Amino acid sequence: MTLFTPQPIGYVRSSYKDTREIPKGLGAKHDVEGVLEVLPEFGLGLTDIEGFSHLIVIWVFDHSQGFELLGTPPSDNRPHGVFATRSPRRPNPVGLTIVELLSRDGTRLHVRGVDMLDGTPILDIKPYLSSVPAEKLRRGWLAEAEARRNK
Amino acid sequence: MTLFTPQPIGYVRSSYKDTREIPKGLGAKHDVEGVLEVLPEFGLGLTDIEGFSHLIVIWVFDHSQGFELLGTPPSDNRPHGVFATRSPRRPNPVGLTIVELLSRDGTRLHVRGVDMLDGTPILDIKPYLSSVPAEKLRRGWLAEAEARRNK
Repeated sequence: MTLFTPQPIGYVRSSYKDTREIPKGLGAKHDVEGVLEVLPEFGLGLTDIEGFSHLIVIWVFDHSQGFELLGTPPSDNRPHGVFATRSPRRPNPVGLTIVELLSRDGTRLHVRGVDMLDGTPILDIKPYLSSVPAEKLRRGWLAEAEARRNK
Repeated sequence: MTLFTPQPIGYVRSSYKDTREIPKGLGAKHDVEGVLEVLPEFGLGLTDIEGFSHLIVIWVFDHSQGFELLGTPPSDNRPHGVFATRSPRRPNPVGLTIVELLSRDGTRLHVRGVDMLDGTPILDIKPYLSSVPAEKLRRGWLAEAEARRNK
């Protein structure tokens, strides 16, 4: 049974040509600017998108091979389950990034907060509508790893 | 070129048997509880997930046929681009829901905030790590539609 056949609606343009250039681990900042280049045939789907300050970008880890259910992320020295991490080696190699929309130029969206390689295929763009208040958020092993590092 | 072949890592169990039962539009509340039933072969990937209060669930609109680049959502009487809405009729029929993790029972995650149909295939689960502060968020046509309704 095929769920669906993923197709790129566009590609990320960023300064990252190699995964080693992308900041990872605790305290990694993602304020790099880049462009979401939407394919012309999907351009109509961007109507009214400029009203949103933040977008959810769903994309493909197209350089990732296979998956690992338990792995040690760059932010810790202990292994965690793949669904409790942002590892690229996932059963479905789908990435997610929240970006700030700076401007739109036709089918090119200029954004801040890119952590994808140049040429990354984009599957979907959704408006970011609401946040979980910070005081209601628990961040499990990541908060613990941060606390250990700051000791 | 095939990007990847989506496979379910599990299924949503919810009380919703028909899309008409799911609250939609302005002010829709999603505090319904449900279960993310992860398949046993992916269970190891849930290691340490119970430390996170909120999860990002990526799933498939498996009842959706085709896509519509411009459509009128239930929350407005004006058409908007598909990438500025949560419409199910997307080029890649991928949905995203933020849920609150209530408890874990083996490979069953009890969660609050379900807006998916019973039986929805899950593609991925990721930890929710940080929020965009409310004061930095602009919500475009949705905020305008709310303002018109409240006049």
